[in-house]
Amino acid sequence: MEQLKERIRKEGRVLPGNIIKVDGFLNHRVDTKLMKDIASEFARYFDVGSITMVLTAEASGIALATICADQYGVPMVFAKKAKSDNIEGGLYQSEIFSYTYKKKVTQILSKEWLTASDRVLIVDDFMANGEAVRGLCDLVDQAGAELVGIGIAIEKGFQGGGDRLRGMGLNYRALAVIESADENGIVFRE
Amino acid sequence: MEQLKERIRKEGRVLPGNIIKVDGFLNHRVDTKLMKDIASEFARYFDVGSITMVLTAEASGIALATICADQYGVPMVFAKKAKSDNIEGGLYQSEIFSYTYKKKVTQILSKEWLTASDRVLIVDDFMANGEAVRGLCDLVDQAGAELVGIGIAIEKGFQGGGDRLRGMGLNYRALAVIESADENGIVFRE
Repeated sequence: MEQLKERIRKEGRVLPGNIIKVDGFLNHRVDTKLMKDIASEFARYFDVGSITMVLTAEASGIALATICADQYGVPMVFAKKAKSDNIEGGLYQSEIFSYTYKKKVTQILSKEWLTASDRVLIVDDFMANGEAVRGLCDLVDQAGAELVGIGIAIEKGFQGGGDRLRGMGLNYRALAVIESADENGIVFRE
Repeated sequence: MEQLKERIRKEGRVLPGNIIKVDGFLNHRVDTKLMKDIASEFARYFDVGSITMVLTAEASGIALATICADQYGVPMVFAKKAKSDNIEGGLYQSEIFSYTYKKKVTQILSKEWLTASDRVLIVDDFMANGEAVRGLCDLVDQAGAELVGIGIAIEKGFQGGGDRLRGMGLNYRALAVIESADENGIVFRE
């Protein structure tokens, strides 16, 4: 998606450790107009007319997922991070490793809001190691729901999360795949 | 806002400890159509034509704030929870007590995305003790920005956060104020 790549080129910053900051339009300050264009782009790749919900993980995926859900006319559901070990009943749970927090995190989702009859589009703003999305796929599996697709705005292609999902034959699409990011700038795949 | 109260009456559940669950439409599964109606209702009380941004706190305020920002044509900015004590520079910080996590939490916001020239509408889905909003007001103060108003979808009126803000003379509006919630049901103020 050329518009998104252009924003990353213009406004993204590369910090030491291959950290890519896009917090001016994606995940701290959010440009909702761009989110709508991203939602329209996902609609070219996924059968959004057939989905029953958009699923994401808290926190930074929520803004994009909300705009997508609104555009497709379905509810937006977000998996929460468990706040303690004392988890109540009636929940799906998935264990992921958070590279941001450098520890294991438990994603939880109420069984009321995801069932076997659901057709789910997973949306997230950013994919690096893919742990958050792996956890979301696991929640969809636990529910016996159907995974229609996985839409990601920006993928750090050099961290393997996206390639792993492609290798699994999932209907996965990232709109801007970053091949490398260092002091020489940002290079996109293809 | 009668439509919101009706949803709370129909779909809300009261759990022991005066916990009010509205996670079927507000803060776990999100009904974006209702969020748009809430955004329109806020526009009756606040001068949304003059604001430069909508500000909220992660995580559950993000969905409503995104829809509001989109409707008013401004960016949505969310304060983040600090992930460690090792906080980088260039950030406003506020200390709040999280009753959910039962510990102090530091809200952080990049100085790039909130400046003295901003006119800010704070939006959140839920107000109980008001700590999250108090922290957001503090961030606006630190920036020297102007606080145009504070819009909350649901206030737990019996926990004092909203009354404290009203007492401070702020332009504060909650669309459904719950006076009591127990085994006898949910009673709204006025």
